Amino acid sequence: MKFIYVVLIAVFLLTVDSCGERQEHITTTDDNRTIIRQVMDKQQEDWNKGNIDGFMQGYWKSDSLQFVGKRGITLGWNSALNNYKESYPDAAAMGRLQFSNIAVEILCDDLAYATGKWELFRTSDTLEGHYSLLWKKLNHQWVIVSDHSS
Amino acid sequence: MKFIYVVLIAVFLLTVDSCGERQEHITTTDDNRTIIRQVMDKQQEDWNKGNIDGFMQGYWKSDSLQFVGKRGITLGWNSALNNYKESYPDAAAMGRLQFSNIAVEILCDDLAYATGKWELFRTSDTLEGHYSLLWKKLNHQWVIVSDHSS
Repeated sequence: MKFIYVVLIAVFLLTVDSCGERQEHITTTDDNRTIIRQVMDKQQEDWNKGNIDGFMQGYWKSDSLQFVGKRGITLGWNSALNNYKESYPDAAAMGRLQFSNIAVEILCDDLAYATGKWELFRTSDTLEGHYSLLWKKLNHQWVIVSDHSS
Repeated sequence: MKFIYVVLIAVFLLTVDSCGERQEHITTTDDNRTIIRQVMDKQQEDWNKGNIDGFMQGYWKSDSLQFVGKRGITLGWNSALNNYKESYPDAAAMGRLQFSNIAVEILCDDLAYATGKWELFRTSDTLEGHYSLLWKKLNHQWVIVSDHSS
């Protein structure tokens, strides 16, 4: 019985391989890591231009987007956008954001986990902490679905 | 050319299905969620018995086990065990741990993400915060591979 499996799988794979009608680009772990790093670079860049809407493009545009912090869990892309705009009303409040020590683990084809340090340099003070980000690849795009910053 | 795919896949699937030589137990999302909740219940129970070694069984026994906090990232199961024993030397320091608002998302067969609130009731004070936990199913066992508590 097992022989028929081997033959069928071999014939199937050979047929698919020789046909080549659906040769899709294979995204490697390194590619995915680079893409996620690029999203974070873009977020940092947008924040430092005072562009919160741009910064928010790194996040899942969903009511289920999750922010975890010491005081609790908040949900929703729109709420997050509004919270950021309220807490950082101008360039002075936004300061200069810097991500460092970024480590991205590709968990599987469409899931990743990133950790690192964040610093916010402002005229009045410097804030800092660490984050862990859960990423999902949705509609061919990597987005943060849960952000725990502390 | 496409017809041969359909025939081959159909024959292959029918053969596998009718054979049934490898009928493994299918673990559902609900099963996995229940198992993770049980691990967390056991951790809470062990902590409240003053059993830090028991509490640590919920974590991946690896040098790559990760703890994220405001002050940084620390690695390793042994370091975590020692840190806990140093920070919580006796029953009074350990107090009574309570996890609440636990939400477990099964990301795929062997990955999960859990969030919730932790409280530590002690004679001298009450500490509290929130956590996000990345879980992996390794060797048929769900373990926390990254703990961000704040």
